[in-house]
Amino acid sequence: MRATLIHGPRDVRLEQVPDPAIQRPTDALVRVVASCVCGSDLWPYRGVRPTKQPRRIGHEFVGVVEEVGADVRTLRPGQFVVAPFTVSDGTCAHCRNGVHTSCVHSSGWGGDDAEGVFTDAGQGEFVRVPLADGTLVAMPGTPDADLLPHVLTLTDVMGTGHHAALSAGVGPGSTVAVVGDGAVGLCAVIAAKRLGAERVVALSRHESRQALAREFGATDVVAERGDEGAAAVRDLLGGGPDQVLECVGTKESMQQALDTARPGGQVGFVGVPAGGPELPVQQMFGTNVGVRGGIAPVRAYIEELAAEVWSGTIQPGRVFDLVLPLDEVAEAYAAMDERRAIKSMLLP
Amino acid sequence: MRATLIHGPRDVRLEQVPDPAIQRPTDALVRVVASCVCGSDLWPYRGVRPTKQPRRIGHEFVGVVEEVGADVRTLRPGQFVVAPFTVSDGTCAHCRNGVHTSCVHSSGWGGDDAEGVFTDAGQGEFVRVPLADGTLVAMPGTPDADLLPHVLTLTDVMGTGHHAALSAGVGPGSTVAVVGDGAVGLCAVIAAKRLGAERVVALSRHESRQALAREFGATDVVAERGDEGAAAVRDLLGGGPDQVLECVGTKESMQQALDTARPGGQVGFVGVPAGGPELPVQQMFGTNVGVRGGIAPVRAYIEELAAEVWSGTIQPGRVFDLVLPLDEVAEAYAAMDERRAIKSMLLP
Repeated sequence: MRATLIHGPRDVRLEQVPDPAIQRPTDALVRVVASCVCGSDLWPYRGVRPTKQPRRIGHEFVGVVEEVGADVRTLRPGQFVVAPFTVSDGTCAHCRNGVHTSCVHSSGWGGDDAEGVFTDAGQGEFVRVPLADGTLVAMPGTPDADLLPHVLTLTDVMGTGHHAALSAGVGPGSTVAVVGDGAVGLCAVIAAKRLGAERVVALSRHESRQALAREFGATDVVAERGDEGAAAVRDLLGGGPDQVLECVGTKESMQQALDTARPGGQVGFVGVPAGGPELPVQQMFGTNVGVRGGIAPVRAYIEELAAEVWSGTIQPGRVFDLVLPLDEVAEAYAAMDERRAIKSMLLP
Repeated sequence: MRATLIHGPRDVRLEQVPDPAIQRPTDALVRVVASCVCGSDLWPYRGVRPTKQPRRIGHEFVGVVEEVGADVRTLRPGQFVVAPFTVSDGTCAHCRNGVHTSCVHSSGWGGDDAEGVFTDAGQGEFVRVPLADGTLVAMPGTPDADLLPHVLTLTDVMGTGHHAALSAGVGPGSTVAVVGDGAVGLCAVIAAKRLGAERVVALSRHESRQALAREFGATDVVAERGDEGAAAVRDLLGGGPDQVLECVGTKESMQQALDTARPGGQVGFVGVPAGGPELPVQQMFGTNVGVRGGIAPVRAYIEELAAEVWSGTIQPGRVFDLVLPLDEVAEAYAAMDERRAIKSMLLP
């Protein structure tokens, strides 16, 4: 089959790789119907994280079950499934707590699973899915072309935006600011709105993203950044937002979030910390602004969010503003890297 | 009058200072009935924080209103009052949010108030209290000698322990670990219990403190620290506690808290960060363990906690295991510094 490998900075290639097959009785084999490029894929693409040797890449995909292992109970061939961006057994204490990313049998796409068996990544034609019962979620049917992008966001960005809002404690009447106008930040706007936020301020300097944020439910847009941005949001919300959703992952964006929240407020963070800036505990102590979040256990949220995607209540797939065939995967990355696209969808 | 000054490491002295008087129409003059030494007073006492010049010290006191300014509406001479450890107006947006420590007119004891007028500290005979209506809370009567220590904890440690538990989100059925067996840690045990925690594990190596923790509601005690301590707590609680209350303020204690919480858990922190260690954002991202807390807005909690103190439901004053006259203030510090006392009470 064909699958995407990253070789180094700005070097992703579609190549021939071995066809995957069922290897464990709990596996499923999935034919990928759509995949996409994640903002976090850009860290190795930009060389911020080194790529020591060529490796498979892509952790967001949906598809059709082709075959299941003998012990798979909840899935059958022909079902359309959503794969969250990590593998989980669904039964351990952490999964039962809704923190599937800390599953004792957790693994990622494009590396070895908990048993040491190689697992394909998402930007390809087929994927062997370990622990299929725990990992995959079957949809009520096969989405048509219009619905497909919305369903695809359940693999990561919609669930991740939701996790930011949940981690920050957004609820009815909340005042919220969202730092980051990428796909996750935009989905965080949707998430804050559906959780009942009264005011949602999107920090964005890009007109098209500002417009989409407003359509997703942002009540206000602030283009300033840094101290000016914090002051502008605080002015709008009389002292500052109850919650700030940090959806970027840089030292600057986290500082923006901490400086913007009102005293006693909460930052929900989901941006993968690039390079590991540490958090200023003295500032947090003095202001009582908390920080909670992390790698989003999107598996926990798929059913709830899927219901609203299928009913058309939310349309997170509008973050895809570029759709390309899989063999143009290099362009899919380049367009996101150069901010010509918010998010690229790939069709095999 | 007489009041305590700190001159430098291990050098606190009771000295003659000017008698305070009402200076603003919103002031009250309070005769101190009891005060105490805070764990955070030990940072300058130990030289961890430098003392540039001799200065008044002490931020926990209760007493009787002697006189009030013309604009004071809610207090009258003769009332017994509790002073939280910061001054607040009670009316600004942050006070209304319950974050009185971020009051726009906030100030501390033993320094200048928001108008630049010197305010006495607590370890003395009298205190000029700015913004008295916002700052002070009148008790239902004058506590007798038995009740006095419990009421005194409302100035700081009981409210601070409560803030740790609230910040961490302790609620009915929670599993909780408490890092720190000082007065705040012990009060945090009380707080977790009264908020409905099902299991409360106190991390303590001192027999007398272990015993008090159990009397306060700890269901388990773990004497180990570091990785061993974290593993012992996780074993006890099947994967780790939902909440960890960090009541010390060192890099080690915060790391202990982060390592002990279950994935997706929450650290509530109230220990003043000594020297400002930063928080490991990568670890927090990977585990989804949040950190929330800070300088406790105890003013917000006095009424609620006072009701339980006066009814005898909680007895946080048992943390005082040394009572001395004010002129032995130096010994009050030394005993806490050398861990001969959990907490020292001073009677003028």
